[in-house]
Amino acid sequence: MGKKIITISREFGSGGRLVGAALAKKLDVPYYDKKILDNIAKENGFSAEMMAEDEMRAKNSFLYSLTNAFGTAGYGPDTLSINERFFMAQFDYITNIAKSGEGGVIIGRCADYVLRDFRDATNVFLYAEEDTKIERAVNEYGIKDENIRKTLADVDKARANYYRYHTGRKWGEPVNYHLCIDSGYLPIDGIVDLILDYVDLRDKRKEEAAE
Amino acid sequence: MGKKIITISREFGSGGRLVGAALAKKLDVPYYDKKILDNIAKENGFSAEMMAEDEMRAKNSFLYSLTNAFGTAGYGPDTLSINERFFMAQFDYITNIAKSGEGGVIIGRCADYVLRDFRDATNVFLYAEEDTKIERAVNEYGIKDENIRKTLADVDKARANYYRYHTGRKWGEPVNYHLCIDSGYLPIDGIVDLILDYVDLRDKRKEEAAE
Repeated sequence: MGKKIITISREFGSGGRLVGAALAKKLDVPYYDKKILDNIAKENGFSAEMMAEDEMRAKNSFLYSLTNAFGTAGYGPDTLSINERFFMAQFDYITNIAKSGEGGVIIGRCADYVLRDFRDATNVFLYAEEDTKIERAVNEYGIKDENIRKTLADVDKARANYYRYHTGRKWGEPVNYHLCIDSGYLPIDGIVDLILDYVDLRDKRKEEAAE
Repeated sequence: MGKKIITISREFGSGGRLVGAALAKKLDVPYYDKKILDNIAKENGFSAEMMAEDEMRAKNSFLYSLTNAFGTAGYGPDTLSINERFFMAQFDYITNIAKSGEGGVIIGRCADYVLRDFRDATNVFLYAEEDTKIERAVNEYGIKDENIRKTLADVDKARANYYRYHTGRKWGEPVNYHLCIDSGYLPIDGIVDLILDYVDLRDKRKEEAAE
């Protein structure tokens, strides 16, 4: 059994990045989030403008909805190709992480979808009730925002749009993940252990099936 | 901390009843499923015909969809009241289980919704890929059915209809549960331990919050 690959999708305030970082540390595998993957893209010739455009588009739910309603053809080939090219490059990079055998924890970026045919990847979705997400965002992320409820909703909306645009699937539907946890305001290390216990269960089963 | 209350919603073939029974045994609390709750209803004056009608209605997706599209008023008051009365009686019974302090594991029956305001209840949803559900249904439930794919889909459709009809919510959406597990063809005792670890995390957190 090679090193573990775990993808984490998460609602804003559910502790996804903290869980991901702790998981990567405990498993001794690399940790990848949007910032890191964007930097890698930059090193590979993608400009900051392209990435900002991708970001902007995900935030603009109207544009995304339109694309969703009329299919990707609605955009016009030029605009689409930059956006799609950027996504495809990250898609390839994530695939290569999984193929490398060095393992990794990948946050967001539709990684569950990208790795859907890799039987060794475990896909996790973290969510929580609004109040506990705010509690965590304020206490653990240090966010001071008078409109925090709106911020939470906007970030998740952008994530759902981004996911639907690139995968055609609904973000946060259990069928896309192996494990969905209401992380509430539970301790990060407890959630990490729960995920690892599940990964072990799956790995053990795969070993038995292979015997 | 009183005895545990755990509700289990599950796709057909995901091992929900086996997990529930093993959980109840391990926690030393009563186990409730549809059959047991129907028997209790019968003892309390509900006729087998009423229960059969409720069952039939959940299976008839057209009737359920119609009700969903036009609101409950679409049915006519007489039909509705029998159906609703039966649901309300089970609703009350499930609420009383939670209030009794004696704990319990409750399978199906919209128990997650019924107990949504009981902070001590943990709601679990079990699902799996079709092939592993069939594997379990054949090997563990002993089902011999040439149209097993259709049976699986029909049973889940009835469950989703029943849930939507009585709760107005979508069955299997993470927001309705604390923990959603792709139970695959994983061993029952492993899933049981995972659920108990999560329940312990939540209980510990509640104790800390109460201090």
